[in-house]
Amino acid sequence: MTIETAIAALKPLLGNRLSTADAVLALHGQNETYFPATPPDAVAFPENTGDVAEIVKICAAHACPIVAYGTGTSLEGHHLAIEGGISLDMSRMNAVLKVNAEDMDVVVQPGVTRKRLGEDLRATGLFFPVDPGADASLGGMAATRASGTTAVRYGTMKENVLALEVVMADGSIIRTGSRARKSSAGYDLTKLMIGSEGTLGIITELTLRLQGQPEGISAATCAFPGIDAAVNTVITTIQSGIPMARIELVDANMVRGFNIIDGTSLPETPHLFIEFHGSRTGVAEQAGQFGEIAAEFGGHGFKWTTKTETREALWKMRHNAYYAHKALAPRLRAMATDICVPISRLAEAINFSVEKSAELGLVSTIVGHVGDGNFHCALSFDPDNTDQFARVQGFMHQLAKLAIALGGTVTGEHGIGMGKIMYMQEEHGEALTTMRLIKRALDPQNILNPGKILPPSNH
Amino acid sequence: MTIETAIAALKPLLGNRLSTADAVLALHGQNETYFPATPPDAVAFPENTGDVAEIVKICAAHACPIVAYGTGTSLEGHHLAIEGGISLDMSRMNAVLKVNAEDMDVVVQPGVTRKRLGEDLRATGLFFPVDPGADASLGGMAATRASGTTAVRYGTMKENVLALEVVMADGSIIRTGSRARKSSAGYDLTKLMIGSEGTLGIITELTLRLQGQPEGISAATCAFPGIDAAVNTVITTIQSGIPMARIELVDANMVRGFNIIDGTSLPETPHLFIEFHGSRTGVAEQAGQFGEIAAEFGGHGFKWTTKTETREALWKMRHNAYYAHKALAPRLRAMATDICVPISRLAEAINFSVEKSAELGLVSTIVGHVGDGNFHCALSFDPDNTDQFARVQGFMHQLAKLAIALGGTVTGEHGIGMGKIMYMQEEHGEALTTMRLIKRALDPQNILNPGKILPPSNH
Repeated sequence: MTIETAIAALKPLLGNRLSTADAVLALHGQNETYFPATPPDAVAFPENTGDVAEIVKICAAHACPIVAYGTGTSLEGHHLAIEGGISLDMSRMNAVLKVNAEDMDVVVQPGVTRKRLGEDLRATGLFFPVDPGADASLGGMAATRASGTTAVRYGTMKENVLALEVVMADGSIIRTGSRARKSSAGYDLTKLMIGSEGTLGIITELTLRLQGQPEGISAATCAFPGIDAAVNTVITTIQSGIPMARIELVDANMVRGFNIIDGTSLPETPHLFIEFHGSRTGVAEQAGQFGEIAAEFGGHGFKWTTKTETREALWKMRHNAYYAHKALAPRLRAMATDICVPISRLAEAINFSVEKSAELGLVSTIVGHVGDGNFHCALSFDPDNTDQFARVQGFMHQLAKLAIALGGTVTGEHGIGMGKIMYMQEEHGEALTTMRLIKRALDPQNILNPGKILPPSNH
Repeated sequence: MTIETAIAALKPLLGNRLSTADAVLALHGQNETYFPATPPDAVAFPENTGDVAEIVKICAAHACPIVAYGTGTSLEGHHLAIEGGISLDMSRMNAVLKVNAEDMDVVVQPGVTRKRLGEDLRATGLFFPVDPGADASLGGMAATRASGTTAVRYGTMKENVLALEVVMADGSIIRTGSRARKSSAGYDLTKLMIGSEGTLGIITELTLRLQGQPEGISAATCAFPGIDAAVNTVITTIQSGIPMARIELVDANMVRGFNIIDGTSLPETPHLFIEFHGSRTGVAEQAGQFGEIAAEFGGHGFKWTTKTETREALWKMRHNAYYAHKALAPRLRAMATDICVPISRLAEAINFSVEKSAELGLVSTIVGHVGDGNFHCALSFDPDNTDQFARVQGFMHQLAKLAIALGGTVTGEHGIGMGKIMYMQEEHGEALTTMRLIKRALDPQNILNPGKILPPSNH
């Protein structure tokens, strides 16, 4: 009962769909942030749910860890097989199985990526709204409870997954939820699986809610004298019931980065990037009302557009935040925090980040999904500079503690993985015991993505 | 270790907040539908979370069943102590603890009722949108995953509860979620508790999302030549991205009932009751667009109003559906189904209900939350007419099976309780095993609302 015997047992089942080639292992052991490379012992490439069930059954029989792999774009090392075992690469399960246009839902396999789904849906007039930036797999997005710039309007993966098919730790296959829009029939296993990061089951199929393409879209940027002014503009806009589709904050440093990589000359103060979706007259009205509110808080340079090219350029700039950050310190690596707090405390948390990182001599930038109270503070560091890395980590700890103290969470959308596991006890307290009981009940051998979400227990 | 020893142990703790008076037991053993009266052995009246924790600890020590009681308005017998034990009456935990207006959330105790919260919030410009009709307690609404007429716009309890405090089966107190609008930090225990009907824990505090009162509200009714025309109007409206706040369908029989109790002379054909929320110009535009779509499907008599009195009269009529149904068969009792299906199959399910109930010689009416695919078919019966009651039950079984066959659920918003437990295996299949594992892990003695949600297991 070892990883080796599991691999031996998997070979006859999978043939060349099981790889132990160094290059393949190395690829599945990489990550986009600061975790050390962690190659698995083997990579399996299932092609259907039956494959996944058989693989899990064999792993269960040999007590071999199994870690689902989507596109590897996780920022918290979710997909790293830190206790060894099998990386389950879902990329071949990439079919869009059924578009139900009348019901505005779609059934997909977990390896379908966000952009691919968008392309498949283009002709239908429908779209899937959750956009975490990276071209992640939909299975991975569900597993990490991902969201992004549109969550303020359309919700996160939690609100946009209707049903799942999941392979459990014993290889059994369950279906959670249904295509009905709501149900009161028993425990909400769909929501339990969303955000469980592959520790309770392997998602093998998803039914997603779709939205109709809005008739009108207007977008704008607006400069503000400070963080508080920008955040107060957002609070007032939300309270006024003006439905924003996107509302993103960037700080002065980030604007400086944009100016470097885009050759623009935006005033280097905090900005909001805004988008409205609705009828043509609706978005015009909303943009007008927003402009008035922004002006009250000292917003200036506000100009809205419905032109597709101008809008796309605006969001391209915003989505290039990572590169704009890198432009401020080209030779350093970057990592990002992900706290989410009640919006009334957001300015306080962002100002703390800006001031504290400056005090520590760190290059930092802020991008925030400000309508949700969620923001990322990106920090540059030199991996060989241990003193600097210690300051980065000290800053991350302080910010995590602040988030919890303000009634928020250490992660709004990136997930726990390995990077936030040390805060689970502080954020959840006694509820962590409940999570452990659930994990133990559903995965008694701890073979599903061991070492993630739940910190080692003392008892 | 019996119910009797538990009651003896609870007395010193609770004094006169523990009652075994016949009238109190009888009250807590009643229900609004067809289940036989089922008085508990005692009723406890906790006044704070500490009380609940102590009561549960004592019940755990004596393996005594404990069933939370809100307002007793459940339609599926959720609050009946069918294995005896303690009814935990939450009505004294009825404080609105904190309104966070800037964050648009509120913290309440579980005994606060929906209407009471609405009154408390009136001056703030904010409101809590979930409206199941009855003046239910918010704890009960969360426990049954309730919704109602506004779910199409604002969601169900699932989307509107941010955080909970819960007393677990061993008397430990946990906090789930936070006041942050989103989080990816671990298993979603909030959503697991919502809809768990008191079988996994006792909800002792809720943090709820609030909405801003819309600037403009317009409402209307519209007559249609048939069910299909009305449903197709709704499908087209949703696909056009016109945001409805409420969209309710009533069938010809129900309109006949309205005409009887209200003295109106509406054409006795299917009708939609519609409401739009938004800016003043927005709701005017939406009502206009809806009117055009309705006309295409043969809708007539459409006239929208923004006058508060006219609107209130309209929704009062809709909310009196139960009495309108009763008017069609005044001497009989009534019960209601609650299936929810993908909207493309809704007309089929409603037409089946209308035709089948007529064929069986039953008095039936339909009201539907048609934007969600959820509808209630109310049926009249004489409890002493066993043949007729058998026909009602036969109809309910057929409709439940149809819902599952159409990719839907046997209960959109009323919950499982006792009334739908016989369909859990058929609706969930292997996923029922996962639910059982969770129940066993969190309530190993099965003291929390035993006999609800999970049907007796063969193993």
